[in-house]
Amino acid sequence: MPYRAPVAEMTFLLKEVVGFDEVSATPRYAEASDDMVQAVLGEAGRLCDEVLAPLNRAGDLQGAVLENGVLRSSPGFAEGYAALAEGGWVAVSADPEHGGMGLPVAVGTAVNEMMAGACLALQLNPLLTQGQIEALEHHASEEIKALYLPKLISGEWSGTMNLTEPQAGSDVGALTSKASPNGDGTYAVTGQKIFISWGDCDFVGNVCHLVLARLPDAPAGTKGISLFLVPKYIPDGGGAPGVANDLKVVSLEHKMGLHGSPTCVMSFDGATGWLIGEEGDGMRAMFTMMNNARLGVGGQGIGAAEGAYQHALEYAMERKQGRSPDGTIVGHADVRRMLAGMKADILAARAIALSCAVAIDMGRATDEAEWIARAAFLTPIAKAFGTDVGCEAAEAGVQVWGGMGYIEESGAAQYYRDVRVTAIYEGTNGIQAMDLVGRKLMDGGEAAGRLLDEIEAQAEAAKATAPELAGAVWEAAESLREATEALVARPMPERFGVAVPYLRAFARVLGGHFHLRAAMADPSGAHARLARFYITRLLPEHAGLLAHVARGDAELMAITAEDLAA
Amino acid sequence: MPYRAPVAEMTFLLKEVVGFDEVSATPRYAEASDDMVQAVLGEAGRLCDEVLAPLNRAGDLQGAVLENGVLRSSPGFAEGYAALAEGGWVAVSADPEHGGMGLPVAVGTAVNEMMAGACLALQLNPLLTQGQIEALEHHASEEIKALYLPKLISGEWSGTMNLTEPQAGSDVGALTSKASPNGDGTYAVTGQKIFISWGDCDFVGNVCHLVLARLPDAPAGTKGISLFLVPKYIPDGGGAPGVANDLKVVSLEHKMGLHGSPTCVMSFDGATGWLIGEEGDGMRAMFTMMNNARLGVGGQGIGAAEGAYQHALEYAMERKQGRSPDGTIVGHADVRRMLAGMKADILAARAIALSCAVAIDMGRATDEAEWIARAAFLTPIAKAFGTDVGCEAAEAGVQVWGGMGYIEESGAAQYYRDVRVTAIYEGTNGIQAMDLVGRKLMDGGEAAGRLLDEIEAQAEAAKATAPELAGAVWEAAESLREATEALVARPMPERFGVAVPYLRAFARVLGGHFHLRAAMADPSGAHARLARFYITRLLPEHAGLLAHVARGDAELMAITAEDLAA
Repeated sequence: MPYRAPVAEMTFLLKEVVGFDEVSATPRYAEASDDMVQAVLGEAGRLCDEVLAPLNRAGDLQGAVLENGVLRSSPGFAEGYAALAEGGWVAVSADPEHGGMGLPVAVGTAVNEMMAGACLALQLNPLLTQGQIEALEHHASEEIKALYLPKLISGEWSGTMNLTEPQAGSDVGALTSKASPNGDGTYAVTGQKIFISWGDCDFVGNVCHLVLARLPDAPAGTKGISLFLVPKYIPDGGGAPGVANDLKVVSLEHKMGLHGSPTCVMSFDGATGWLIGEEGDGMRAMFTMMNNARLGVGGQGIGAAEGAYQHALEYAMERKQGRSPDGTIVGHADVRRMLAGMKADILAARAIALSCAVAIDMGRATDEAEWIARAAFLTPIAKAFGTDVGCEAAEAGVQVWGGMGYIEESGAAQYYRDVRVTAIYEGTNGIQAMDLVGRKLMDGGEAAGRLLDEIEAQAEAAKATAPELAGAVWEAAESLREATEALVARPMPERFGVAVPYLRAFARVLGGHFHLRAAMADPSGAHARLARFYITRLLPEHAGLLAHVARGDAELMAITAEDLAA
Repeated sequence: MPYRAPVAEMTFLLKEVVGFDEVSATPRYAEASDDMVQAVLGEAGRLCDEVLAPLNRAGDLQGAVLENGVLRSSPGFAEGYAALAEGGWVAVSADPEHGGMGLPVAVGTAVNEMMAGACLALQLNPLLTQGQIEALEHHASEEIKALYLPKLISGEWSGTMNLTEPQAGSDVGALTSKASPNGDGTYAVTGQKIFISWGDCDFVGNVCHLVLARLPDAPAGTKGISLFLVPKYIPDGGGAPGVANDLKVVSLEHKMGLHGSPTCVMSFDGATGWLIGEEGDGMRAMFTMMNNARLGVGGQGIGAAEGAYQHALEYAMERKQGRSPDGTIVGHADVRRMLAGMKADILAARAIALSCAVAIDMGRATDEAEWIARAAFLTPIAKAFGTDVGCEAAEAGVQVWGGMGYIEESGAAQYYRDVRVTAIYEGTNGIQAMDLVGRKLMDGGEAAGRLLDEIEAQAEAAKATAPELAGAVWEAAESLREATEALVARPMPERFGVAVPYLRAFARVLGGHFHLRAAMADPSGAHARLARFYITRLLPEHAGLLAHVARGDAELMAITAEDLAA
């Protein structure tokens, strides 16, 4: 399963499609020149191709195991992680004040995606650490920052998120873990957490858990939740890992895929923790890391899609079968349709993720509310569409491989099994869509409207050179605008029954917009031909999706639970 | 993973939706009264619920293994199969002349689907035997029929299909297995076959292989292929299994799912075989069993979808999470959307499969060319749409289960892994679509047009009582008619790049038609509400699909292999 990080494509998208030049024009990111970005991505790409990709299969065949309470990671993961950390790739966007490179999130998003494409199970480890760094940068005391951030950023220690409990999954507010003050500024944290990715790790010096729990007498629901930092080993006076904390991994889950990433049931038994942020302010701090992680998980989907695509393309260009012009199955129209669809969707999803990252960078560099709102609006789309494209591309990859795709040795099945969880964790894709039509349209559709204005303006500008494509994108954006306005006019609960189709329609139209930009920048090249395919054949899907939105939820909610069981 | 065969729903569809009354009105199937069908389905349902469903999980956890060349099937499979055979369920549609029940294929299709819903891996065994029975009934000599059919129909022996070779998958014509005359009327068959489902079996007395091979000096391609019956044990004078034939299972594949079904690499080393049909006529005989098997595999997808649906619904009605009217997640709009979508698509796919079966029965009972053409037209749609719905429902099932769905113990993942192969074997769904736009439109679109006439006539008739739904179905059928006419006007190779979207659009419209019929028959019940959901929210997908057809393959084929690799 060789993998080649798509460095040239990422550079093209940053430069020509998602407006990264605006980021490097800010004082904050003035150092992020084209040359610098290209050098960084090239270097990261080499790590992915040469060091991480060769670990992917081993991580599936020999997943992480728990032996007598001791976690043993997959063969080669320790060495791969060491190379990753040594190269400075754990958290390239982290604050230079604590040892980070301070690179734009757009660059970090590209690096994350390529690490995911190479070895999804291992990449999840630094991705979670990034979320923790983000949360600590924003909410921790200076003391905590000084102690933990350099070690997390260097990769010496890793970070996890402990949210879910058996009765509290999508409904985080139902959690019951407790934290009581020890009287010395620390807290005793007690409770059981499930689905904790990389809840333990045998190739870092310490595993730092961010744990959501309730203080005594805290109110019910999300308002009563606080955030605690609970390290596996309590740092000693010199900041080195000291005595073991009162927590343990109870068991590992037996998952369909991503075997290289240990998914832990964690038990905290009066473990010593430090409050992060204010009491009762845990959800806000959690959302800081969640938003980062959501974009990151979207990138996991895209990386897996790229891996599955390259894997399928390589097979299609070698496998001889039937009568096709060059004898291989890539000459068959339906195989080509699958591959073109994968590639076109990957471009759309990648551009959405990178443009979300650009908005985050611009928000940070300028503090302008419009950029901040745009980042917030694009995050659930980047997460859900990126991971949907991951699942769909992996499914198409199996199909391109045909019967061989169902045999584990081919590797196609691993992509299919591994990527599936990305549509579930960090908020299921249904939760993302509810966030989009709920919280993200609470501005009355302003952020959405500004995006649509840009899409239409770009389409207008492209009309002279590519009238058919530009016209199709403009029309689609206008339909989406009407649907958005109608949706905003509906009361909140009615929006939820059409949320997923609305999110996908928005992604489809954004994809049309970015493909059109790519075609404008590469008018006689591969991007122009791919854009033509996307806009004429994939973009029309938006109409069927918007039909859901137009109907609202009346037909859906008329179906009773008894009807479903009939 | 409890399973309840949807007997009432199947009975409703047969009686009210797919016109089974026409079948029981023929002299050939006069005995298949409503009461009789209901009794048969009820009895089969009990076997599925009580005997087969409990085996499903064991088949995944302890798949078939090969130990020193001896196959050992999953725990309980032998007992499950014995009960299945004893009940007469191996081949309910087989000819009474050789011990079959002679029931309509429509009834057999329903029985097959429920056995697949209960335990897909085991059900594949009798499904393959059915294909062999069909092939022998049509093409074998009276001697062979008298010897083999009673044992296959009773389930005492099982049957397999040996088509694929490493270099000959979708392109069957590339196969190189050889058969040379022994001089005594038998042939020596030599070659290696791969992907042979149930290539061996430890709970039947003999395994009968139908093997495609070439006679000496046979022409290249499909014209040089003949069909041979090659039993594991050569029957002795009394018809009992005698000496072992020169064939063996070399190895089992390590598959993503369907572990209970051994997928064998077979080696034939001068094994004794009997020619079935004429020399060089193997492809025709093979298509007899393939068409049967294709409808059967479509039913596997539907059965798996039903299993995944019931499994997800049960969880959704028990799992408490978040604020919903009744406290469980079935109250959440997006969960309900997923469940309603699964249920609505299952109805559509099931009705398509049953109406295909009705056409087969009518063709047999009347010999009318129109029925025969309809069966041929609907077969690839039933296969591809049935299995696509299987994959999509299993995917939605995982999503309804959320994080638990990714954990193997929940069982949701097994449905997802097991059903995936149904979109690949018996001709990939891409091959089905090529068959539809190629061979099945070679009549200039006549069979398609007659179906569309019926859909529109039914919509006209429904306009008085359900104007909106009837209007939407009529409009969709008319769009499909235009697309069909445009497609027929294109030269053959240009059709292949739009074949898959065309097939799906046809299935979507057929689904609208059958939902409308269901709503007419149950105007104030659950079917009417489900039809409303399907027609207003799922049917509009056809427009985006037909956009592919309207474009043709120009944009697709403009993308070169170099573009894909760029």
